[in-house]
Amino acid sequence: MKKPLILVVNDDGISAKGIRNLIKIMNTFGKVVVVAPDSPQSAKSHSITIEDTIRCNKVLIDEGPQIEYACSGTPVDCVKLALNKLLDRKPDLCVSGINHGSNSSINVIYSGTMAAAVEASLAGIPSIGFSLLDYDFDADFSEAEQYIIKITKQVLNHGLDNGVCLNVNIPKSIEGLRIKGMRVCRQANANWEEEFEERFDPKGKVYYWLTGNFVNYDKGNDTDEWALANHYVSLVPVQFDLTANSSLLSIKNLFADE
Amino acid sequence: MKKPLILVVNDDGISAKGIRNLIKIMNTFGKVVVVAPDSPQSAKSHSITIEDTIRCNKVLIDEGPQIEYACSGTPVDCVKLALNKLLDRKPDLCVSGINHGSNSSINVIYSGTMAAAVEASLAGIPSIGFSLLDYDFDADFSEAEQYIIKITKQVLNHGLDNGVCLNVNIPKSIEGLRIKGMRVCRQANANWEEEFEERFDPKGKVYYWLTGNFVNYDKGNDTDEWALANHYVSLVPVQFDLTANSSLLSIKNLFADE
Repeated sequence: MKKPLILVVNDDGISAKGIRNLIKIMNTFGKVVVVAPDSPQSAKSHSITIEDTIRCNKVLIDEGPQIEYACSGTPVDCVKLALNKLLDRKPDLCVSGINHGSNSSINVIYSGTMAAAVEASLAGIPSIGFSLLDYDFDADFSEAEQYIIKITKQVLNHGLDNGVCLNVNIPKSIEGLRIKGMRVCRQANANWEEEFEERFDPKGKVYYWLTGNFVNYDKGNDTDEWALANHYVSLVPVQFDLTANSSLLSIKNLFADE
Repeated sequence: MKKPLILVVNDDGISAKGIRNLIKIMNTFGKVVVVAPDSPQSAKSHSITIEDTIRCNKVLIDEGPQIEYACSGTPVDCVKLALNKLLDRKPDLCVSGINHGSNSSINVIYSGTMAAAVEASLAGIPSIGFSLLDYDFDADFSEAEQYIIKITKQVLNHGLDNGVCLNVNIPKSIEGLRIKGMRVCRQANANWEEEFEERFDPKGKVYYWLTGNFVNYDKGNDTDEWALANHYVSLVPVQFDLTANSSLLSIKNLFADE
């Protein structure tokens, strides 16, 4: 059997520890091509570079068998460039991450990691976004590894529904507490309560830093937030039809006269 | 009755013709506060500024009664800053646009205009994104006006379901062809087939421009693409739960052993 072709991308930048770990794992599954941002691109969501040029260069970061490209664009630019310019065939799998920090519930809206996975799934490629709930630059990815291997194996063997990707979040390693297993979940109804810290520059002019607190409004035990709070890996199947089907009728009634 | 408080935002930048038209219309409905990017922010999707500072200054662009702020951040930053720092109460409505160009079907994933509307709806504010299918800097918004007025009136009077906003796209004005009316639609299944134009800089180093062609795979006559192609205004109710509910069971089966 032909070795699967695996595209690896992330949003923390090509030298982040998370993607270096993911590349090592993916090298055991197939031929790996990395196309990742040359600088951190967190919270870039699904943005693309349309008003500026994109640079992309082959790089050598470590001694693995993978081929690597560093790209000046966003995570979604990386996927588009890989699929339409750099790869000679459609990859069998796209994995994104391992993100340093959570992409559960509402965070999926901001995440460059998940945007890259969604972009690949829109092109018909089975895709998985992996995130570890640890923002530390030097986070410990060792406990995550076995779950990434299990999930990758299943997706390579069985595929995913067309247009669907997986949002996988992995609890932070806690000494003396093992991850309990995996849960397939829905996206929790949660949000951020933002605060803007006001500061003044050396010239006395005001500027702001965005900060905030995460708030989970969702009491269900079938959500990703529940799974993670209970020290399970969460798997949410993700698709990108935003139509609010349950509101279609009421909106139709509202505009019935037109 | 107290005058409604209306937040106006966009992604083309505070001086774009689209938002200037939208402000004029909104001034007839209530007290208007504009918080919009100080430069074009097209295709920024739901990105937020977390690794850099945000500047925001009161500006005077024209002689209307509105209060205006120009912000260095993304459209979503503008909404967050408005709701959490600049406004003294929750607005009764948030309108975003009028975008110069389509935000129908898959374009909603890239759109800063729609991201701003979604962000406001996540905060429980009835929100509408307006887009005109004309990329021209000097586009003609006159035919759009009556539809914007109708839709705004209905949403101000009746609200929207919690967490739901409207994605309104308006056909480009064509001489001799009047807009036929409005259609409440679902998001069409469409995508972009990208191409990257390869060029060389004066030093001989390669760079790329992202280009592409829009492809509608969806033959339904209940979609936004159908409505627009048939010269109707399209209204899609939008929400942000990405859970692929129809795949939950198969994914559960795939990971049944864990």
